[in-house]
Amino acid sequence: MKSPIIVDLKFPPDAVARALSGAFPGREVINMADPANAGRDLSGIDYALVWKQDPTLFERATDVKAIFSGGAGVDHILRVGGLPENVPLVRFVDRSLTDRMSEWIVLQCLLHLRQMPAYLRAQAHRHWEELAQPEARDVTVGVMGLGVLGQDAARKLKVMGFHVVGWSRSAKAIEGMQTFDGDGLDDFISQTDILVGLLPLTAETRGIYDRSLFAKLRQGGALGKPVFINAGRGGSQVEADILSALHDGTLRGASLDVFETEPLSQESPLWAEPNVIVTPHAAAASDVAALMRHVEAQIARHESGLALEHVVDRTLGY
Amino acid sequence: MKSPIIVDLKFPPDAVARALSGAFPGREVINMADPANAGRDLSGIDYALVWKQDPTLFERATDVKAIFSGGAGVDHILRVGGLPENVPLVRFVDRSLTDRMSEWIVLQCLLHLRQMPAYLRAQAHRHWEELAQPEARDVTVGVMGLGVLGQDAARKLKVMGFHVVGWSRSAKAIEGMQTFDGDGLDDFISQTDILVGLLPLTAETRGIYDRSLFAKLRQGGALGKPVFINAGRGGSQVEADILSALHDGTLRGASLDVFETEPLSQESPLWAEPNVIVTPHAAAASDVAALMRHVEAQIARHESGLALEHVVDRTLGY
Repeated sequence: MKSPIIVDLKFPPDAVARALSGAFPGREVINMADPANAGRDLSGIDYALVWKQDPTLFERATDVKAIFSGGAGVDHILRVGGLPENVPLVRFVDRSLTDRMSEWIVLQCLLHLRQMPAYLRAQAHRHWEELAQPEARDVTVGVMGLGVLGQDAARKLKVMGFHVVGWSRSAKAIEGMQTFDGDGLDDFISQTDILVGLLPLTAETRGIYDRSLFAKLRQGGALGKPVFINAGRGGSQVEADILSALHDGTLRGASLDVFETEPLSQESPLWAEPNVIVTPHAAAASDVAALMRHVEAQIARHESGLALEHVVDRTLGY
Repeated sequence: MKSPIIVDLKFPPDAVARALSGAFPGREVINMADPANAGRDLSGIDYALVWKQDPTLFERATDVKAIFSGGAGVDHILRVGGLPENVPLVRFVDRSLTDRMSEWIVLQCLLHLRQMPAYLRAQAHRHWEELAQPEARDVTVGVMGLGVLGQDAARKLKVMGFHVVGWSRSAKAIEGMQTFDGDGLDDFISQTDILVGLLPLTAETRGIYDRSLFAKLRQGGALGKPVFINAGRGGSQVEADILSALHDGTLRGASLDVFETEPLSQESPLWAEPNVIVTPHAAAASDVAALMRHVEAQIARHESGLALEHVVDRTLGY
């Protein structure tokens, strides 16, 4: 008999219920959002799919053999804590999530390249004036984080004409693209006109996008001043530093999908900055139906004796 | 001795003068913007590079063997009239112009796909709310006009994940893409969620983007309602019909770079439509330096006995 799967996803409950209907055929689903499961014995169950799980979940689910993350990042799972050691934790990696993230990143890079913030202001004033316009090939986009998402975004940015370089913690060779790692950060930053953040949130990346980093971005490139785009995690950015860099001319603009505290406070000055685009952590919403397919596929691998994919290195945090 | 070239470009005179400095080595340039050339004898000269030329130019330049257009479209040259018959008229086709046009088109398609008009309104109200979000593969972009610009835009839209179909007056087979021609217009339109206009302005295309066309676009696709994007010529669109289609829900939004009259009148309601993006005919500004290189290369072909490229069929108007 197939082991049941525990589902503890702090997503909108209706969306989870819809996605679960018909998912995991032949396998019982124990949805912790259902009050009937509150006191249930969770011992002897092999799998758990979680996102911001109950902190006591794994005191009860003592026998899990694999834990699946509801999102691409696992910081919200590791932060809760209480996970059994030596049990694989599997990230959510999905074509749909990747495509959506690249849509958002290419959109934001083109928005800044093509001066849309200035054109939208001109439109609001019914003002017709063509602005000086570098083309993509004259602008270097630096992608920080070269996992599945970073590599896909880099490939699409190149097709759109941008010159693209990349940085990751550990060295990665990617065809047709100059990459930097570890200590090469300053070399990478110094040639970057548009910085795209796609890093996971770890002890090392907390607050990494700060004044000292912005100050090293290339000044005087084709856009005049650099742009910061973050689609990774808000905990990696120092919002006070973004604001002061915008005000003193270190940065020309920014597109932010993630924030130190979400939802972004109504009091934040970021909402009203002239060259800042704010989106509500919507760059690449997890498609819950795709999540269920991904977990089913990984369980099928596991049960046929194959290794799980996208397993997190917990010492690195991603 | 090399024949001189007549230059009559109604572009900003400084930009033309800068681009001419060093261009056409070994060949005299007769810039009609220079008052000293007003009364000059223009007979016996082989080449003319023009854009909104003086209507009497070719009464004086009676011996030209090739005429070069300063822009990708030639409607502004044919409309002036007075061109000698049986002299080739060469369009401006250039990598830079093509890349810029594709940047603008992909940007506008992504803006509407990713609901940026609604997100920008939410940002202005400091309102944090994730919106329902189809992905590019669920949206069909229909490109009208499959010349160099249309084909490049289609290829890049496909890389970004969109489903792309195309229509052109005469049949064109393009690998990996369903194309329609002539009478297939209704079939093409009925499956299009985002219509991208890249048609030249001719007698046949004047006013082609009208109420009856918008009414045939797909309703109920992944975006709910269709979007109209025009980067071709303003004379092809009926602005009163765009406005009424937006107001009665036939269209969801629009991005317009070209207008019936340019600059767009301050009185036009288009400036203030909530889901309309207006740019000042800036999608793909002619790079004047690139124009000079293109004309030099075509003259070199001509003088070495090769055929000129991108020659306009004057009966078709492009």
